[in-house]
Amino acid sequence: MKETVKLIAFDADDTLWVNEPHYRGAEQAYLEILGRYVDSDDLAARLYQTEVKNLRIFGYGAKGYMLSMIETALELTDYRVEGRDIERIIQLGKEVLSYPIEILPGVEETLTALQGCYPLMVITKGDLLDQESKVARSGLADYFGRIEVVSEKDSATYQRLFTQMAHAPQEVLMVGNSLKSDILPVLELGGHACHVDPGYDSWVHEQVSDECLAEHRFHSFDHIAKLLTLV
Amino acid sequence: MKETVKLIAFDADDTLWVNEPHYRGAEQAYLEILGRYVDSDDLAARLYQTEVKNLRIFGYGAKGYMLSMIETALELTDYRVEGRDIERIIQLGKEVLSYPIEILPGVEETLTALQGCYPLMVITKGDLLDQESKVARSGLADYFGRIEVVSEKDSATYQRLFTQMAHAPQEVLMVGNSLKSDILPVLELGGHACHVDPGYDSWVHEQVSDECLAEHRFHSFDHIAKLLTLV
Repeated sequence: MKETVKLIAFDADDTLWVNEPHYRGAEQAYLEILGRYVDSDDLAARLYQTEVKNLRIFGYGAKGYMLSMIETALELTDYRVEGRDIERIIQLGKEVLSYPIEILPGVEETLTALQGCYPLMVITKGDLLDQESKVARSGLADYFGRIEVVSEKDSATYQRLFTQMAHAPQEVLMVGNSLKSDILPVLELGGHACHVDPGYDSWVHEQVSDECLAEHRFHSFDHIAKLLTLV
Repeated sequence: MKETVKLIAFDADDTLWVNEPHYRGAEQAYLEILGRYVDSDDLAARLYQTEVKNLRIFGYGAKGYMLSMIETALELTDYRVEGRDIERIIQLGKEVLSYPIEILPGVEETLTALQGCYPLMVITKGDLLDQESKVARSGLADYFGRIEVVSEKDSATYQRLFTQMAHAPQEVLMVGNSLKSDILPVLELGGHACHVDPGYDSWVHEQVSDECLAEHRFHSFDHIAKLLTLV
């Protein structure tokens, strides 16, 4: 790998910093609000259904998440949810949009070691301003020559970005926590990919079955600094 | 201009297709909903205040607009707004996210004439997926080598994009309806800019005073095809 890689791209959320637990915390608080109206143990599943249905029109990110929370609350309470609770739901979403960034262990030492050896970039999906704001708040922006926020992380998107930067996929190493979004589409193009497990579950929408993975070969680490053994 | 321009970039909303009237239509329907709760003639101004306050965290685009409409409705009705009306507000926003694209007069003939002579691109701000979806729905995507959705159209953003594409600002002509977002920041960098008036008012946030414009020189047309006289 060392010989062919000319660019290293990093996912952001749950690869460089803690993100998913903030969404899970917001969801927990949301379910407590809804629990005062509805006695049901599938509230989380109903929220997820609305989220997935709305992805087509809202895309990924916290603003669509807020709107899906409100829509689900109206539906499940038969419109009885109170205005103050809608306001609390908006506030939960605003907290997800402004949480203090907690950089994951080993990230800074890894970026410091790679900087100067390879051009580094970020490829992330979600709300445009939110992702840019997180990069800025993280203090990591200077490590990266380029920050790309995309609406979907599929092989067509990666191909478009690599072409824009005049790199063949074989020259790129993508590092990320999501097998579905960071690893498989890059491997499909013939690129290199390194999976880093942040030590907590990813969003269920990002999970893939073992059968999907069986035919693919990639490195998987529990700590990002182990990446340095590869390049 | 003909000698120096090597790239032509177009704004999208209200430059290539009708957008602002869809927002004004949604606002009118929203004000009618609120009017059933509150007797006031500054509802539109209060919505605008919330929008501008939230721009910092939500950025531009329909999803933030929907959330600001809901937040304003809660505030102005003292939380009395009914669940069914919150649902209607979400529906108004979803309509803004999926309206059928009406291409502005002269756009297709202009793009057809320029295609092959210059590389063409789109630079637009708003929600990432929404902007990409409008380009796709417009049927104009094939005219453009590159579509860039940005969180802010200021001179720093334009400089970053032009640098990525290895163009000096002097080699770029930006075409758009917003003096604030499409014209002034590009002129500040030393680039070329051409203002096209779609024949209806732009969003108040995009308006600039005559004094701001006095010191700048740029072409302003009431029809995009007049651009062809310049290049």
